[in-house]
Amino acid sequence: MNSEEIKKKGDLILGNVSINCVVFGFNKGDLKVLLTKWPDFESHMLPGGFVYKHEHLNDAVTRVLYERTGVKDIYLKQFEVFGDSSRMFEDVFKKHFRIPETEVGENPWFARRYISIGYYALVDYTMVEPTPEGDAEMCMWKDAENCPELSFDHQLIFESALRSLRYDFLTQHIGLKLLPETFTMSQVQELYESFLKTTFVRSNFQRKMLNLGILERMEKQVIKKPHKAPFLYSFRPDWTENYHLFI
Amino acid sequence: MNSEEIKKKGDLILGNVSINCVVFGFNKGDLKVLLTKWPDFESHMLPGGFVYKHEHLNDAVTRVLYERTGVKDIYLKQFEVFGDSSRMFEDVFKKHFRIPETEVGENPWFARRYISIGYYALVDYTMVEPTPEGDAEMCMWKDAENCPELSFDHQLIFESALRSLRYDFLTQHIGLKLLPETFTMSQVQELYESFLKTTFVRSNFQRKMLNLGILERMEKQVIKKPHKAPFLYSFRPDWTENYHLFI
Repeated sequence: MNSEEIKKKGDLILGNVSINCVVFGFNKGDLKVLLTKWPDFESHMLPGGFVYKHEHLNDAVTRVLYERTGVKDIYLKQFEVFGDSSRMFEDVFKKHFRIPETEVGENPWFARRYISIGYYALVDYTMVEPTPEGDAEMCMWKDAENCPELSFDHQLIFESALRSLRYDFLTQHIGLKLLPETFTMSQVQELYESFLKTTFVRSNFQRKMLNLGILERMEKQVIKKPHKAPFLYSFRPDWTENYHLFI
Repeated sequence: MNSEEIKKKGDLILGNVSINCVVFGFNKGDLKVLLTKWPDFESHMLPGGFVYKHEHLNDAVTRVLYERTGVKDIYLKQFEVFGDSSRMFEDVFKKHFRIPETEVGENPWFARRYISIGYYALVDYTMVEPTPEGDAEMCMWKDAENCPELSFDHQLIFESALRSLRYDFLTQHIGLKLLPETFTMSQVQELYESFLKTTFVRSNFQRKMLNLGILERMEKQVIKKPHKAPFLYSFRPDWTENYHLFI
C-alpha cells in the first residue's frame, strides 16, 4: 500500500473492529494452519482484515478468507473476541509500510485500538491456494502442532482457536469438515488417529463411526474393478448431535 | 442523559463496538431473563453498553452487568457477535433522549453502526437487584419461556443466547451456575426437569447426577435435627467434561 491507499483505507473501514482467521487444513496426517509473514519481520501472523463501513461482518470474514485462500463456502466459526485495551499496532504498521511521520494525519485508522473477532475456518487442504495480500507479504501453510512463533497476540488467538477446534472435534465431530466432500473410511481414521493421538483397529473404528449416524455412504461409481474401490462417504448435512447425554 | 452528557459520552467510548447481555436466572421452576424498558417505548430491550477507550472488553461487560444487577463475579459466556450492517439506532436514540437536531454535531457517536458482542450470563436469581440505567429506564425479570417482544435485533440476540445456553446445559451441565453456591439435590432436579421438560424419579436422578462426578457433597452443619436436613452440594470447580464420547 502506498500513502494514498493507506489514507483511503481509513475512510472505508469501520473503526475499532478487526477480524483474525485461524484457517486449519489437514494433509497427510498433519493438521496445518495458514499463516502470513512480512519479509522484514521475524515472526509469522494470522491472516486478518477489517470490516467495510456498509459490509455485514459475515461478508467481511468470507471476503478476507476468499482473498487468502481462493475458496468460498468455507466452514467458519466465531470462537472468541479479543478485547485487550493494548491491541494497538501503530508502530509496527508504520515501520512495515514505511509511512513517513509527515504523511500521518491526526488519529489515523492504523493508530486505533482494534477489538478482534476470532474465527476458525476448516478447509479442504487440496482446494486452497495460499495468497498473500500484495507483494510485501508471504502466505503459507505451517504445521499447527509445531507452529512458528506468532506476532502480537496472535499466539493467544491461535491457541484459543486450537482449543475450540479440539472441543468441537470431540463433541460435534467437526473435524470431518477438514476432508474433501467425499472421503474414504481410511481418511476418516487417519484424521481421528492424528487428532486423538492414538491408533484404532480398522474394523472397530468403522463400526463405531458408522454407529454415530454421522456419515452417508455413497453409491459406488462403475469403474474397472468395482470390488477393489473403497466406499466413499460424506458428512450428513442434516446430522445434529444427540445432546441427551444425561437422560 | 442531558445534551452535555450525551456529547461527553462520545469522547469516552470506543466507536462501532457495543455489548449486549442476556442475563438468565432461575426461580421457582422458571427460567428468567433480565430486560430493560424505556417507558415511552412499547417493547423491551436487553441490557447493553459500550466499551471505554482504555477498558478491556472483559472489564466492560463485567461493569455493564454489575450496573444492572449489583452482582460481581458472574458466569459469562461470549456466544455470538452480531454484525449486520443495519445495526444503527440514531432515530430511536434521538427520540428517547429528546435530542434537538441543533444539538447533534456531525457524525455523533449514537449515529454510528455498532457491532454487538453478545454475552449470556448465569446468575443466582436471589442475589440480583435489577437496576435501571437512570430515571428514564426500567429493569426487571421476565419469564424467558414467555418473553415479551424485544426491540431492534434483540429478539435475534435473545434466541441465539437461549440456543447456546441449552446446548451448554446439555453438554457441560452449565445450568448448575444458575443455582446458589450450595444447593440441595431437589433444587438440581427442579432445574433439570424444567430445562428438559420432563420428570425424573428422585432416586434415579440422584444416582445419575452423582455418577457424573460434577457435584461435591458438603459436610452437614450441626443443627437441631441433623438427620432431617438435606445434604448440600456444590458444583466442583475443577470438573471438566469428559469429551471422549467416541473412543
